Amino acid sequence: MARLYLAHALAHRQHEHMTTSSDILPRDLPMAGEPLYERLAEHYRRVITSGTLAPGDRMPSVRVLMTRHQVSLSTALQVFRRLEDAGWLQAKPRSGYFVRRRTSPSLPCVDEPANTASPGEAHFVGLHESISKVIALAQQYPDALNLGGATAAAALYPTARLQALTIRLLRQEPTLLTESGRDSGGASFRQAVARRALSSGVVVSPEEVVVTNGGVEAVNLALRAVTQAGDTVAIESPAFFGVLQIIESLGLRALEISTSPSTGISIEALEMAFRAYGNIKALVVVPHLQNPLGCNMPDDRKVELVRLCAQHKVALIEDDPYRELLDEPDQHKPLKAWDKSGGVIHCVSLNKVLAPGMRLGWMSAGRWHERVKMLKFSQSRNNEALSQLVAAEFMGSGAYDRHLFQLRERLVTQRIATAEAIARYFPSGTRLSAPAGGVLLWVELPSGTDSERLFEAALAEGIRIAPGTIFSNSRRFASFIRLSCPQPFDQTLDDAFQRLGRLALEAH
Amino acid sequence: MARLYLAHALAHRQHEHMTTSSDILPRDLPMAGEPLYERLAEHYRRVITSGTLAPGDRMPSVRVLMTRHQVSLSTALQVFRRLEDAGWLQAKPRSGYFVRRRTSPSLPCVDEPANTASPGEAHFVGLHESISKVIALAQQYPDALNLGGATAAAALYPTARLQALTIRLLRQEPTLLTESGRDSGGASFRQAVARRALSSGVVVSPEEVVVTNGGVEAVNLALRAVTQAGDTVAIESPAFFGVLQIIESLGLRALEISTSPSTGISIEALEMAFRAYGNIKALVVVPHLQNPLGCNMPDDRKVELVRLCAQHKVALIEDDPYRELLDEPDQHKPLKAWDKSGGVIHCVSLNKVLAPGMRLGWMSAGRWHERVKMLKFSQSRNNEALSQLVAAEFMGSGAYDRHLFQLRERLVTQRIATAEAIARYFPSGTRLSAPAGGVLLWVELPSGTDSERLFEAALAEGIRIAPGTIFSNSRRFASFIRLSCPQPFDQTLDDAFQRLGRLALEAH
Repeated sequence: MARLYLAHALAHRQHEHMTTSSDILPRDLPMAGEPLYERLAEHYRRVITSGTLAPGDRMPSVRVLMTRHQVSLSTALQVFRRLEDAGWLQAKPRSGYFVRRRTSPSLPCVDEPANTASPGEAHFVGLHESISKVIALAQQYPDALNLGGATAAAALYPTARLQALTIRLLRQEPTLLTESGRDSGGASFRQAVARRALSSGVVVSPEEVVVTNGGVEAVNLALRAVTQAGDTVAIESPAFFGVLQIIESLGLRALEISTSPSTGISIEALEMAFRAYGNIKALVVVPHLQNPLGCNMPDDRKVELVRLCAQHKVALIEDDPYRELLDEPDQHKPLKAWDKSGGVIHCVSLNKVLAPGMRLGWMSAGRWHERVKMLKFSQSRNNEALSQLVAAEFMGSGAYDRHLFQLRERLVTQRIATAEAIARYFPSGTRLSAPAGGVLLWVELPSGTDSERLFEAALAEGIRIAPGTIFSNSRRFASFIRLSCPQPFDQTLDDAFQRLGRLALEAH
Repeated sequence: MARLYLAHALAHRQHEHMTTSSDILPRDLPMAGEPLYERLAEHYRRVITSGTLAPGDRMPSVRVLMTRHQVSLSTALQVFRRLEDAGWLQAKPRSGYFVRRRTSPSLPCVDEPANTASPGEAHFVGLHESISKVIALAQQYPDALNLGGATAAAALYPTARLQALTIRLLRQEPTLLTESGRDSGGASFRQAVARRALSSGVVVSPEEVVVTNGGVEAVNLALRAVTQAGDTVAIESPAFFGVLQIIESLGLRALEISTSPSTGISIEALEMAFRAYGNIKALVVVPHLQNPLGCNMPDDRKVELVRLCAQHKVALIEDDPYRELLDEPDQHKPLKAWDKSGGVIHCVSLNKVLAPGMRLGWMSAGRWHERVKMLKFSQSRNNEALSQLVAAEFMGSGAYDRHLFQLRERLVTQRIATAEAIARYFPSGTRLSAPAGGVLLWVELPSGTDSERLFEAALAEGIRIAPGTIFSNSRRFASFIRLSCPQPFDQTLDDAFQRLGRLALEAH
């Protein structure tokens, strides 16, 4: 429990691109196509985040870089400048460059759940009304600083490129808006999605992909495909409130399973629940950057989870909208990658990673593919073609990886600055999640703090947060809040966190 | 039964804009803003379609027009040219202009259902598989001439204007695709929809409108809001196959109610069914240009239907995507206009009337509004903003009415030419619907004709039609087909109908 935020965050950033000093150029140099200095800078960033060069260590000199990588003085200098600008290095006069010591926020990690062994009880969800109240109240303050959302600010997405691409495609195919039943958009998008899936370890054909209106429709269709009203669905605790709403809207019961802020859902508690209740039809999990906890399931637990669900014939719905926001996505394979029996329904979306305004999601539903296709067709027909064509073209270009790389880099900086601000201003006793990517931070306030009171007080001061109560059908997280770091940290945000800290104290 | 197609079609075109010869300008001159000659031409078109000037009648002379309406010679000549071009007038050398005698297709109207008094039995729907087969087979012939769809060709929609508007709006607000949670698009679109509803006699506030992914999602949400799996839903017979698929996907039972090709669903059969079965939770009807029959409910039957459903506490789901395609939409008010108790759920879309590629629909759900809002939010969140902004701006401009006016005029011509071709080429004993608008024609082939065989044979010859079997859970319409007139009639179409007629004979 004494783990520090930063140490924990950095531990997630290990990778396999290590090199020895005898390398001329690192073997697996990242980002082919980028300028050489960018690729070398990224190489050294990885050397630092992996801990090979630790904070305070001296960086190899300009001369060493020139010799080691056989690059020019100007390239070597650019590498140093890039790393200094990004905050990884610090120049000391007459001594050279050193790996920067980052101020540790000194907050302990959010507590592990008390009792992971008891399976608890399944309940119909009665949360919609209170979630709606929270959303409606927030909508009364449209100008509030939004620290409660799950997407980054528009400035962090490729706004101009997507705009230009949309205009170009619409010029090329003017009848996109007025022609009926075109599936050309769908076909290219499904192919782009299938190609992308391949690089994450998931083998799926374009025909096995069903395009949806965002990730929410994907999870909705998945649950409709595998359950009937009255059935029980196992979920994480805390869980994304959207999943709780879907469960409520379909007349299902939710069984909340203890979930660790570091390793995700408790396999042990889940196994006990499967044995205790015969009527669990599905499990919904967010294996990467779980919302709101921020945790990632380790590989061995993923394998175990897929096996357990297959054994108990429980549909495993993998809600996976954040994976591309991981600092090191290549190290995290979707559950679907281990699915041998078609029992995993993988739901993904572009909402958080590329274009929150486009409402594009998709799913590959394993052995429920035909049923999901039928439900989607009868629920809302095919998605419109234009946005699918735009997304397909963008995803098929190098621009997508460059965008994701920049987005991740910015989120690291923003997340660390936000965690530091919370550590500075929040009441003593506050605990914090340590996500290895994304925009979300899960904050445990001192026991007895009323997160709904805090939510209302913050709104009145122009700050929007998400109260912990909307993430569970119980009151278990009443003293938690979900915060986010959607934009570059600046004085405005610093002021906002200072005010939030004061209000958190008052809400105790 | 001896009614002829054309007489029947024209009977629908009565209106209240009649003028006496003493008028200088017709009092209620249509289409303010259009050039004077266009408005006068439209006035005389109405005089002709209402029967005041009958086929063969002499048209008033150019001189009479100049005096009667106090217009210039050039304007009067333009009026004649316009009417001649559109096929309403025929010049006879040295005699002047006469109202054109249109060749009557001489086909009797589709038969009234045999027994409207028996309520029949409710069944779970098991149609999805065969509908999917039909759709999948059709998709194997993407280049087939599509005479089986329900939308017009892209050329009949305002492609260039919508394209330009989309580009302009995206330039004005570049972050439309990358900003999260914007409801600005929704707000303007809901307002445009509410204003439009007002002109059709429906009073609804923008807040009571829920925007959906096309009309299908609206009907899906309506049924989800008022039923549970196992419930019975009354529908028309024949019915739109999409409604049958929704009913099947939600595990509901369908009770098919006799529906007249001239006046719509049988109120008598419905009342009997309400009395016979206590568990009917909803009724889905298409009151205008019913798909596939093409019939419109007369006002007195609409009033009676709304009353009957309110009395039996049955939710009345009004599926209304075609009303704006009526030759005379102002004469047909939605059922919702008579709804006093909030028991009517009105579902509309832009799919058939403006932009088949935009997937925009909406609904006003009366007393189920809150539940529908909740279901929509948990099913697919808000629609994306861009298309809503485009549609709102277009609907708020005069261009929308001008587009609809032109579209209706073209569809009249195309529908008549198509009906004539069917009369020319189809086997004797063929009967035909007489819709007062839209693109659909419902064709009853001689008893014993196999519409699925015909569908397959036609596809093999590059022509796509819709077999009658997909419009009912029974085999009642196995010898019917649904055809459409999506584009201007030409030699290609003439050839296609000739081939279809031959294939229809062979499928007997």
